[in-house]
Amino acid sequence: MTEDLIKAFRSLAALSQSDADLITQLFKEKTIKKGAYFLTEGQICKHAGFIVQGLMRYYINHEGEDRTYAFASENNFVCNYESFIPKTPSLKNIQALEDCRILQISYDDLQLFYKQVEQGEYLGRVIIEQVFIQTLQDLSSFYTDSPEYRYEKFIRNHPDLQQRISQYHIASYVGVKPQSLSRIRKRISTSHD
Amino acid sequence: MTEDLIKAFRSLAALSQSDADLITQLFKEKTIKKGAYFLTEGQICKHAGFIVQGLMRYYINHEGEDRTYAFASENNFVCNYESFIPKTPSLKNIQALEDCRILQISYDDLQLFYKQVEQGEYLGRVIIEQVFIQTLQDLSSFYTDSPEYRYEKFIRNHPDLQQRISQYHIASYVGVKPQSLSRIRKRISTSHD
Repeated sequence: MTEDLIKAFRSLAALSQSDADLITQLFKEKTIKKGAYFLTEGQICKHAGFIVQGLMRYYINHEGEDRTYAFASENNFVCNYESFIPKTPSLKNIQALEDCRILQISYDDLQLFYKQVEQGEYLGRVIIEQVFIQTLQDLSSFYTDSPEYRYEKFIRNHPDLQQRISQYHIASYVGVKPQSLSRIRKRISTSHD
Repeated sequence: MTEDLIKAFRSLAALSQSDADLITQLFKEKTIKKGAYFLTEGQICKHAGFIVQGLMRYYINHEGEDRTYAFASENNFVCNYESFIPKTPSLKNIQALEDCRILQISYDDLQLFYKQVEQGEYLGRVIIEQVFIQTLQDLSSFYTDSPEYRYEKFIRNHPDLQQRISQYHIASYVGVKPQSLSRIRKRISTSHD
């Protein structure tokens, strides 16, 4: 089950066999049922995960309403670093939208990873950089982009996920009520004709 | 001039004399006059800086208005990593509010730092983690916290900077017109009596 994870790390840096063995040891398998949570608001995020199979959404309570600001699926890392690193309660929720199989690592084991994997610090830095940029883009878009733009972005960034995500959750990501989503769809398809 | 920078790194990890010499070589002195910019919207951020002396503000154009979302002063790093790492145009502005002396490093030299300083990758990771958490907190607060709360936070986080920042820029950080700031001040001082 760790093959995809090892492959993800190897796309960034060379790993020896003993590095790969250590990674297999440090990351533990976990399943999360559809509808259940990887993390809920108020909890401290105690693990960073890697999605082997399944789909999750990140959402935040924004002015009394649940608003989805990101999706994560196979080969994505999943974590709320704002809670995980300083060990403070999460303001965000991460929920499984399908039955998920993940590999997860605790904070302490991640420190071992950084120290004992030969290029562990390098991997940690470049992965956190990618997550940093992605998270900032997700959040800026969430607060400033129009629903139309967010819908177009969703289609562009997640062509593979459209069939797997309900209209309800796509609407939550776009930032409109489900009944408004079809109007946005229609406007966009008309303007592209 | 690099003493404070070396000290900042040494608070996180041991540095050898040759590490310190390399750092002195890679970071270049620069002065930025009051009112001038470290980075403007549309530019690619080409340097990460360390403020030796002076004060800067980060601002963004939010619905047609300049809004300040962070301040940085002595011993802070200054950079827009969202532009610096992927080499894309900045959406943010970083302006000197006082004459500033900084030490700055280019993207390529920073890669040398990561590779050649013995704990360079470790330092890179922990600094980017700190910046990541701080930036997310700044931006979340910017979009969701009330002006009163932002003013209280400003006073709490920057007791040393109150005298150095104009009412105009404090109001821009709080998210109100300058004339509204005194009303917020009054309400807060009354409620604390």
